[in-house]
Amino acid sequence: MKKGVLFLIPVPLAENASAKSFTPYLIDTINAIDTYIVENEKTARKSLKEAGLKIPQSDLTIHDYGKHKRNDSMVPYFKELMTGKDVGLMSEAGCPGVADPGAEIVSEAHKRGIKVVPLVGPNSLLLALMSSGFNGQSFTFHGYLPIDKVERVKKIKELEQLAEKKKQTQLFIETPFRNNHLYEDIIKNTAAQTLLCIACNITGEDEFIRTQTVGQWRQEKIDLHKKPTIFLIYR
Amino acid sequence: MKKGVLFLIPVPLAENASAKSFTPYLIDTINAIDTYIVENEKTARKSLKEAGLKIPQSDLTIHDYGKHKRNDSMVPYFKELMTGKDVGLMSEAGCPGVADPGAEIVSEAHKRGIKVVPLVGPNSLLLALMSSGFNGQSFTFHGYLPIDKVERVKKIKELEQLAEKKKQTQLFIETPFRNNHLYEDIIKNTAAQTLLCIACNITGEDEFIRTQTVGQWRQEKIDLHKKPTIFLIYR
Repeated sequence: MKKGVLFLIPVPLAENASAKSFTPYLIDTINAIDTYIVENEKTARKSLKEAGLKIPQSDLTIHDYGKHKRNDSMVPYFKELMTGKDVGLMSEAGCPGVADPGAEIVSEAHKRGIKVVPLVGPNSLLLALMSSGFNGQSFTFHGYLPIDKVERVKKIKELEQLAEKKKQTQLFIETPFRNNHLYEDIIKNTAAQTLLCIACNITGEDEFIRTQTVGQWRQEKIDLHKKPTIFLIYR
Repeated sequence: MKKGVLFLIPVPLAENASAKSFTPYLIDTINAIDTYIVENEKTARKSLKEAGLKIPQSDLTIHDYGKHKRNDSMVPYFKELMTGKDVGLMSEAGCPGVADPGAEIVSEAHKRGIKVVPLVGPNSLLLALMSSGFNGQSFTFHGYLPIDKVERVKKIKELEQLAEKKKQTQLFIETPFRNNHLYEDIIKNTAAQTLLCIACNITGEDEFIRTQTVGQWRQEKIDLHKKPTIFLIYR
């Protein structure tokens, strides 16, 4: 039996960002399929509505791939794909599998010989990297920095050294309610001439993206509390 | 005087990929500005036309930021931005500044206090990473691998070790006419259980994306000659 296709469907990063997020192909795709594997059903349904879903929501089959389900068998998620139906994969924001869950589903799809098709859409890491003015020929994303303050400061210094030694852009994130702590740790523990890009609320109405030296950042007060932010270091 | 905004405008990765590439916001943006800084004028004009530009092409001001211009003064590129006009930055394919030129322009914009706004669009690295099923919480893009064969093989082995040690996805590229050589070097010089994702002609009509072990890749013949390809290694 011919297997279905797994479409990787991005979700907006911010409120009122539909026009910035959806391509016509994405809209056509969601109107051609009725089965989804999602990180969060509520967000997924909202995003499908915003994208212009014409199929009644009650006609959709949605497999909840939330945190609590991730150690279960993957068999139920693949039922439709294995019997020839196309299925969409969505995370809570941005692109599935990048700084977001979903990679396990994609990995399993490859193992089962299922075709994987990624759709263009918003990704905060990529948009931050484009906007930083830093090296886009060599970069590393590190995910979350350590929670322990001593370990975190050590890591920041290590990333600063890596940036200088390898001329490589270093990207990282923090849980939004700890952003101000991370920001303080960065500007206190890196050299004045090190470059720091703060990319905050990307695609949102209050999007804020700026690159300047740590010395310049030290002279101003910013508030990143609870605002989704990408931090980028370069030298 | 109020300065203009620098919009970072993505360009399709493949032929006939308009519906996969452009958001309504991108279309509105290009119809609201008439000045561009571009890597390649011909590609830029073609992309603007495909996106739905209504302004006559003859009314556009296009600054050619081609290879041969990159050591010149940046002053001419910023004339309009400094006097309040919004300007678009475009590379030849994908997103400016990521595995593509443009970062110097963005960096100079930040130095001049010009607001930078990135637009959502196709990027082959990101689409490949999403589709690989590999770790999207930790990854490095290395750009081009060394041309010298001995150095290249050494680098491949180093990336395989990094992938295993750090559980970090390793992404890299090659000039398309050398893709088959790189592929051969990878499958000959890495362990059978190492995972390799080949993501080829992304968003194109012949898009080919597959993840399997090096052992499985060794059992088939593929041709990547002159096809834009992202290579990803993981363990």
